[in-house]
Amino acid sequence: MGGEETATSKAPRTERGKRTLRKLLDAAAAEFGERGYHEASISGITQRAGAALGTFYTYFDSKEQVFRALVDDMGHLTRQHIAERVPGNVDRLTAERLGLEAFIDFVREHKDLYRIVMEAQFVAEDAYLNYYKVFAAAYTRNLAQAAEKGEIRPGHEEERAWALIGMSVFLGMRYAVWSSDKTAKEVADAAAELITFGLSPLARGGGGA
Amino acid sequence: MGGEETATSKAPRTERGKRTLRKLLDAAAAEFGERGYHEASISGITQRAGAALGTFYTYFDSKEQVFRALVDDMGHLTRQHIAERVPGNVDRLTAERLGLEAFIDFVREHKDLYRIVMEAQFVAEDAYLNYYKVFAAAYTRNLAQAAEKGEIRPGHEEERAWALIGMSVFLGMRYAVWSSDKTAKEVADAAAELITFGLSPLARGGGGA
Repeated sequence: MGGEETATSKAPRTERGKRTLRKLLDAAAAEFGERGYHEASISGITQRAGAALGTFYTYFDSKEQVFRALVDDMGHLTRQHIAERVPGNVDRLTAERLGLEAFIDFVREHKDLYRIVMEAQFVAEDAYLNYYKVFAAAYTRNLAQAAEKGEIRPGHEEERAWALIGMSVFLGMRYAVWSSDKTAKEVADAAAELITFGLSPLARGGGGA
Repeated sequence: MGGEETATSKAPRTERGKRTLRKLLDAAAAEFGERGYHEASISGITQRAGAALGTFYTYFDSKEQVFRALVDDMGHLTRQHIAERVPGNVDRLTAERLGLEAFIDFVREHKDLYRIVMEAQFVAEDAYLNYYKVFAAAYTRNLAQAAEKGEIRPGHEEERAWALIGMSVFLGMRYAVWSSDKTAKEVADAAAELITFGLSPLARGGGGA
């Protein structure tokens, strides 16, 4: 567990180099996702990528380094996918609903994501921590901005960010990785209703005293 | 990955046997928690427990079997600890708050819990799945009963159960395993406020139009 290694120490500068790096990362996602970190091998990655072993070492120094790069990459891909599906001009509560639906769809297409990010905890704990810290910091800022605009109730932004991330992760695990017995929209609608109104019987004028 | 093994195939019948089993499970939690599944060894467990190797095999057939038993055991311990801290006569929303506070306190005392339960995903995926399914089924029932009593708004009990579990797990990870920079009560109060009222600016008569 090097700790100090940076995932992008050999970042490609040409378009061709970027395409090769992309092919290696996709192959690594398949290799780690299918075989797990301990069983995965660099030769398994290069075989899947149809690349020579030397090509691998042009971009990475070790199995651990490509694994760390992959955890970072998964974070970027997830955020990018969600950003594409959530228009910039919607209010925070709508963004929560659309973002969760996009996330569940994304996980259904990238089930290996979960294995890799969660296995990171045991292989490169700092990468795992960083993966969620980056998410949580952005989320906290978004919530604080929304509160300033009056779109949501202010307060406890950091705790709420972690709570909402945990919610998404577990809904993704249950309804995207393990089973797809409900549509992403059904799950996102149910969660958005909880996020918006909570469980109080008094919300939305329904039930209660 | 045996899959068909049952964790309790050699359940002790005497009080002394139960104490020995407890000692072995506590030692296994320490061994797996510190060294991870792959590095952990049966001799490491028996050394920590101050027990002979033969004693281990009186209760378990393999490293995998004691690991599975441990995941089950962690589930029992967690539920028991929460049950002790949440009186049976409180309404659901109060139970959510007290339960989360108890959970965070529990995780602070059992940080290895997280490593073990999460590593289970890569060692004994069925044990991991079962761990959360048992939690979610009980949670879903509790929410449905609370809705019947009018304590919470009815609907989407299953999705809500998974959302609330994910919330607890991530709050536990952030505020109990990684850092204790806030008290369990502060975190539980913030989360309970979210669970009760959601993010809507209109809840509690505050903010909004």
